[in-house]
Amino acid sequence: MQLFLECLPCLLRQVLEAARMATSDVDVQSDIMDEAVRLLAGYRSYSCAPMICEAMHKIVKEQSGVEDPYAQIKERDIGQALKLEPLLKDFALREGDALRLALKVAATGNIMDSALYQNLDIAACLKAELEKPFAISDLEDFKDEIEGAGQILIIGDNAGEVVFDKILAEYLAPEHQIIFAVRDAAIINDATVGDARRAGMQHYAGIISTGCRAPGAIYELCSPEFQDVFDKADVVISKGQGNYEALSDPSRQVYFLLKAKCPRIAQTLNVAVNEYVFKRIGG
Amino acid sequence: MQLFLECLPCLLRQVLEAARMATSDVDVQSDIMDEAVRLLAGYRSYSCAPMICEAMHKIVKEQSGVEDPYAQIKERDIGQALKLEPLLKDFALREGDALRLALKVAATGNIMDSALYQNLDIAACLKAELEKPFAISDLEDFKDEIEGAGQILIIGDNAGEVVFDKILAEYLAPEHQIIFAVRDAAIINDATVGDARRAGMQHYAGIISTGCRAPGAIYELCSPEFQDVFDKADVVISKGQGNYEALSDPSRQVYFLLKAKCPRIAQTLNVAVNEYVFKRIGG
Repeated sequence: MQLFLECLPCLLRQVLEAARMATSDVDVQSDIMDEAVRLLAGYRSYSCAPMICEAMHKIVKEQSGVEDPYAQIKERDIGQALKLEPLLKDFALREGDALRLALKVAATGNIMDSALYQNLDIAACLKAELEKPFAISDLEDFKDEIEGAGQILIIGDNAGEVVFDKILAEYLAPEHQIIFAVRDAAIINDATVGDARRAGMQHYAGIISTGCRAPGAIYELCSPEFQDVFDKADVVISKGQGNYEALSDPSRQVYFLLKAKCPRIAQTLNVAVNEYVFKRIGG
Repeated sequence: MQLFLECLPCLLRQVLEAARMATSDVDVQSDIMDEAVRLLAGYRSYSCAPMICEAMHKIVKEQSGVEDPYAQIKERDIGQALKLEPLLKDFALREGDALRLALKVAATGNIMDSALYQNLDIAACLKAELEKPFAISDLEDFKDEIEGAGQILIIGDNAGEVVFDKILAEYLAPEHQIIFAVRDAAIINDATVGDARRAGMQHYAGIISTGCRAPGAIYELCSPEFQDVFDKADVVISKGQGNYEALSDPSRQVYFLLKAKCPRIAQTLNVAVNEYVFKRIGG
């Protein structure tokens, strides 16, 4: 998906956030912003937001010497999500369509990177979010698709969200082989292999790296091993906005599971901001 | 006041807003953003945010050919504020310290550029804002200062706010000569001479231009005529954040009257975001 003009200030705001997390040295923060703005001036040479986002956060890592500025945030998010796991399980086990409930839990995990930052009452907020229906749901197609499917690939998003994805993986695991793919290196608060393990995903899925270091699985930048899994999996579920931006024109059928958090992303999906989407694209 | 790193994404967001108001041609919007990001990369050569803000919005004007992208917004804001004038007068005439009430009305006018944009119930919102006390108030010093003062200079901020400033000017006018200074040309939603006239300020004050086209009266960029008024006025009241950023290290005593809307500005004043300030600096 193209880079929107709205992405430019948003990318810059996020780099400053990362710079502040990586270092308290204001000179280094300034140097990071200098380089980031210069890089941003060449935004037209990047095909999607996750690609320029990776380049900008590389500046943060190089200038600060900190490989994972969001390490503490991710640890906090995973810890908080694990505490909320009983609540998620209760919701998933309530009466109703068990697959829809599991998908809704996984989609709702998408709030973990914003809700916690704002010091909201996360349990109350989470309960309300879980109750929100999907604005778009290709659930019936998905049900047909997973009937007899062998391998299901889930491409993960942020670190805390993995605990939510685990509920979906647990539901699907008895009948299918689940592969859970994550970023190849630390980038903002997205899950890496280590984060996915800390969230406990290994109990239900094989964890692999996409080979891509951007906050979205840009197919061309993924490893041949991941590309092979992506091409051959019977069903692919892509979590979050970053993967949607990276994979919006997929070479195969992909189910996108996300909360539309930004107005422009919402617009491309024809939903309102904050609505939940489970949508099949491509193939 | 120095440019903060937080200003960079904020400036870019504001330019995009202006570009969208000036033209619906997405190519022109893109060209504006291209040039704006390149200019932003040289942010270190600007001494304060209003200065780079002016340069960035000059790009919008030049590329779109639209001299005043916020013309309609300003007209709407002034119209809305004029409708609210009876409510403001009621507040100003209630029992209590009449000067404090008039100052509070003028300070509250500072919400006109954000409240309306969000489609809030402006009358309800305004009543609540009027009731908020000043977090910092140098009212007693101000009272001593205006005792026997001849000329009082008020440096205006956004267009809708002028209707609120009129309440203060009306209160002060019987005893003092009021000069109301505005931007030299259209810049974001700030008041120009035409806007101040539309708001009706001429009934209580002489309206002059600062000679400066930035969204803040940067002394060095103001006209000799304005500098003379600024230097010689018995009392100077500076409205809003932009003027505070431009004049924060003034060559004379200035009373800053504003609502702290941004976290960094609030920090410099030692108040919380959204708090009201009436503070004497310099001299």
